[in-house]
Amino acid sequence: MTDNKQAIPGVLKALDENTEAALARLVEILKIPSISTDPAHNDDCARAADWCAATLADIGFEASVRSTNGQPMVVGHYRAEGEGVIPHVLFYGHYDVQPADPLEEWDSPPFEPRMADDGTNGKIIVGRGTSDDKGQFMTFLEACQAWKSVHGALPVSVTVLLEGEEESGSPSLGPFLDANAEELKADLALVCDTGQWDAASPAITTMLRGLAHAEIIITGPSRDLHSGMYGGPAQNAIRVLTSILGDLQDAEGRVKIPGFYDGIIAPTPEQLAQWVALGVDDKTYLAAIGLERMAGEQDHSLLEQLWSRPTAEINGIIGGYTGPGSKTVIPSKASSKLTFRLVPGQEPDKIINGFKKFVSDRLPADCSVEYLESGGSLAVGFDVTAPAFRCTAEALEEEWGKAPVLMGCGGSIPIVESFQTKLGMDSLLVGFALDDDRIHAPNEKYNLISFHKGARSWARILEKLASL
Amino acid sequence: MTDNKQAIPGVLKALDENTEAALARLVEILKIPSISTDPAHNDDCARAADWCAATLADIGFEASVRSTNGQPMVVGHYRAEGEGVIPHVLFYGHYDVQPADPLEEWDSPPFEPRMADDGTNGKIIVGRGTSDDKGQFMTFLEACQAWKSVHGALPVSVTVLLEGEEESGSPSLGPFLDANAEELKADLALVCDTGQWDAASPAITTMLRGLAHAEIIITGPSRDLHSGMYGGPAQNAIRVLTSILGDLQDAEGRVKIPGFYDGIIAPTPEQLAQWVALGVDDKTYLAAIGLERMAGEQDHSLLEQLWSRPTAEINGIIGGYTGPGSKTVIPSKASSKLTFRLVPGQEPDKIINGFKKFVSDRLPADCSVEYLESGGSLAVGFDVTAPAFRCTAEALEEEWGKAPVLMGCGGSIPIVESFQTKLGMDSLLVGFALDDDRIHAPNEKYNLISFHKGARSWARILEKLASL
Repeated sequence: MTDNKQAIPGVLKALDENTEAALARLVEILKIPSISTDPAHNDDCARAADWCAATLADIGFEASVRSTNGQPMVVGHYRAEGEGVIPHVLFYGHYDVQPADPLEEWDSPPFEPRMADDGTNGKIIVGRGTSDDKGQFMTFLEACQAWKSVHGALPVSVTVLLEGEEESGSPSLGPFLDANAEELKADLALVCDTGQWDAASPAITTMLRGLAHAEIIITGPSRDLHSGMYGGPAQNAIRVLTSILGDLQDAEGRVKIPGFYDGIIAPTPEQLAQWVALGVDDKTYLAAIGLERMAGEQDHSLLEQLWSRPTAEINGIIGGYTGPGSKTVIPSKASSKLTFRLVPGQEPDKIINGFKKFVSDRLPADCSVEYLESGGSLAVGFDVTAPAFRCTAEALEEEWGKAPVLMGCGGSIPIVESFQTKLGMDSLLVGFALDDDRIHAPNEKYNLISFHKGARSWARILEKLASL
Repeated sequence: MTDNKQAIPGVLKALDENTEAALARLVEILKIPSISTDPAHNDDCARAADWCAATLADIGFEASVRSTNGQPMVVGHYRAEGEGVIPHVLFYGHYDVQPADPLEEWDSPPFEPRMADDGTNGKIIVGRGTSDDKGQFMTFLEACQAWKSVHGALPVSVTVLLEGEEESGSPSLGPFLDANAEELKADLALVCDTGQWDAASPAITTMLRGLAHAEIIITGPSRDLHSGMYGGPAQNAIRVLTSILGDLQDAEGRVKIPGFYDGIIAPTPEQLAQWVALGVDDKTYLAAIGLERMAGEQDHSLLEQLWSRPTAEINGIIGGYTGPGSKTVIPSKASSKLTFRLVPGQEPDKIINGFKKFVSDRLPADCSVEYLESGGSLAVGFDVTAPAFRCTAEALEEEWGKAPVLMGCGGSIPIVESFQTKLGMDSLLVGFALDDDRIHAPNEKYNLISFHKGARSWARILEKLASL
C-alpha cells in the first residue's frame, strides 16, 4: 500500500481544488425529494438509491441497490490491497430525509438547494437533507473520491451502507443486517450522523445513553366510586400513583430506585476534565427551555446529567376524569408511562426490576399494579483509549487545529446498538453537523466549511486508520 | 285546631285501611315516563306535573303547574287554621326520574310497575321512580290525604314544591326559588329524598358535606422536550405535579394542606356515640369496593371519615403522552382536577387558598401553576337539639319502635343548600329509601313497607310539628 504519510497532502490538495465538482454532486442528490415516510415519494427514494449506487460505482466501489420490504439499501464494497492486514471499515449514512412541512416556512423550495451567506456561519447551502444526512455522508464519499483519483486506491477496505429509512424508524435495517451479516461485518463502523461541538471544534461521540421503559397501571378500588358516597375511607388510584411517582427523586435530584446507580461506569477523568473545560453555561442552556435550575443530580454538572448520568422520567400520566369541568369521581385506575435513560454499566432489566421493587415497596396492600410494555436497550460507551479512537482524534486535531471533544449523547442512536449487537462492531461517531443546522425543520442548512473540512477530515482519518 | 294527640290514631287507621287506593295512586304516577333529561319525554314531564297538581288539588291544596325554561314546577299551598301560630312547612320532592337504560337489564318494563316479593324485603314495587323519588314523595301526600280525609284539615300549613329537573341538574330551581321566595318561604323544609339506616331503622340526615373544587395546570419547561436531548437537567411537569399531589396526605391519612382542619365543628358526643353503636363493619364496607384498609384519617372511624371528616380527592390527572406505546417526551404541562369534601366549619375559599399555598410551597421556583374552575359550596350541619328535630325523632321512634339514626351524608344535596341560602330555612331530611333500592339502575324498587310506614311516619311528624 501507498505510504500514507506521503499520500495525504495530495488528497487534501485534490479536495481543495475540486470543491465546485463536489458541491455539484451534493446538489444532485439534494434535488431528489427522498422522503421515506411518505409513500408518494417511494420513486424518489428509489432514484436517490440509484444515484448513490452510481456515485459509489464512479469512485470504484462494487455497488448495488438492494431491495427490502421498505426503501432500498445501497451497499458498496471496496477491497483494498492488503485486505486482512489493513483495517476494513463499514461506513453508514442515510439517503432519506424528513418531510419538508411546513412548506410555507421555507424561504426557498426545500428541494432546490440554494447557496447563501449568513452572518454567523459564512457560506451555507440551504435545503432539506443538506445536513441530515446527505451533506454529511457526501463528506465521506468525497474523501474516497479524492483518495481514488489521486492515488488510484483507498488506503483501507471500505464497505458503504446507505439506508433509506432512517427518518421512518429503520424497519428494514435489523432484518437486512441479520441477513447480510457476513457481507457487512468489518473491523469498525464509521457513522456520520452526529455533530461537531461547535463550528470551530470537531467532536467524537463516545457514549450514548440507553433506555428502559415501563408502563404501569395502578388499581385501587374495584370500580370508579362517587366521592360523596365513598370519599374518605376509599383509596384513590391517582393518590396511590402520585404518591409513588412523586417519590422517584429525592430533594437532591437523585433517583431513589433501589440499585439504580449500581455498577455505573464513569467517564474517564480526562473526559470529565475536558467537559469542565468546555465551559458550558447552565443558565443559558436552561433559559432556552424556560427553566432556571437543573433538575437532575445536584452533585453532577450539566454535561454529566445529560451524557453520563441516568434519569427516571415520567413521560405520561392519566387517570380519572379529564374532560371539561369537575367530576366527583374516585378513580379505580390510574396509569403512567416512564422511561429511564441509562448509562454504561446499567442493564435495562435490572432497572425495571428495581423500579418494580420501588413501586411495590410503596403500594398499599389492598391496591394492585400491572406492568405493560417494559423493555429497553443498553447504553453504549466506547473505549476512548483504543487505537482507532486515538488515531481519529489525531486526524481531527490535524485538520481543525484542536483536539476533538469526546462527547456524550443523551439519547440513543439505534444503528450503533445494532452494529454492536448484530455485527459485533464498535462505531466511530464523527460528524460535522452543527446545532443551528435546523435539521428536521424549515430552512435546514449545512455550512460549506463543514462540507469541505468534513471531507478533509475523513481523508485524514482513512490515512490514520490504514496505519493501525 | 284539632287536639293532635287525639287525632293521630284515626289518621293511622285510615292509612292502614286504604293501602290499595294509595298503591293505585302511586302506580298512576309511576306509569308516566317523566325522564327530565330527554327532550323526547318533555310531554311526559308535563303530564306528570299535571297529575301531581291534580292530586294535590284533590287533597285540598291550592295547586298550580308553573312553567320554567325547563320542566315545570308544581306548587301546592294549604293554609291551616292558626296560620302564623302553627308552623308552616315546605315539602320538597321531585316527579322526574332517571333514564331507564340499559333497558335489556330490566326484568319487566320500567314504566309498567310490578308488585313482587323478594326474599329479603318482602313485598316490593319494581319500576323506574318507585324509590327515587315518586314513591318517596307520595308517602308525604298520602299522609296529607289521610289527615284531610279523617279530620277535614292538615295540622300545619303546608307548601308542596315538586320539581321536574332533579335528575338533570335542577337548572331552573335556583331562579324559581329566587323569583318566588316570598311565596315559598316557610319555617322549615321537609325533604324526602334520602334513606333509612336499614330496613328496620329510620333515620334523619343531619349533616351533609360541602365541596370545594380546583383544577391546576403545572408548567415546567416552556415546551415539550426530547428526553435524549434534555433528560437530566430539564424539569418535568409530571414529576412536579406528582411530587406535589403525592404529598397531599401523610402516612396517617391526614391532609397536609395548611389550615385544612381549622374551625371544624365536630358532631355531638351523642351523635358520635350513636354512630359507634351502629356497629358498622369496616371490612364488609371496604370488601364491597375491593379494598381492605381505610384510606382516610386513621384516628377516625369509617362513619366519621364518610360523614364528619373532610377529604382531599384527586379526581383526574393528565399529562404528556398517553397514547399507545412509549414516547420519550419530557412534558411541559401536566394538570389535575381535585375536589375537597367539606364539613361544617370549613369554607371553600379558605380550603382553596390553603391548597394554593400547599402547591406554591412545593413548586420549584422555575415552574408555574395556573388554577382553573375553583369554587364550592358549604357543608350543612343542623342543630339536632332544635325542637323540630327532637319532635321528628320522637315521631319516628313511635312509628318504628327505635330512635332514628342521626346520619351524616358524605355528599351534598343541592336543594338543602338552596333552601338555606335562598330561603333561610333549615331542612329536615327524612326518607324511607334503602341502600338496595337500585336507584338510577335497572329494576329500581321500593319496599311496600317503606311506602306504608313512610306515610304513617309523615302523619306522625305533622302531628308533632303542629304541637311545637
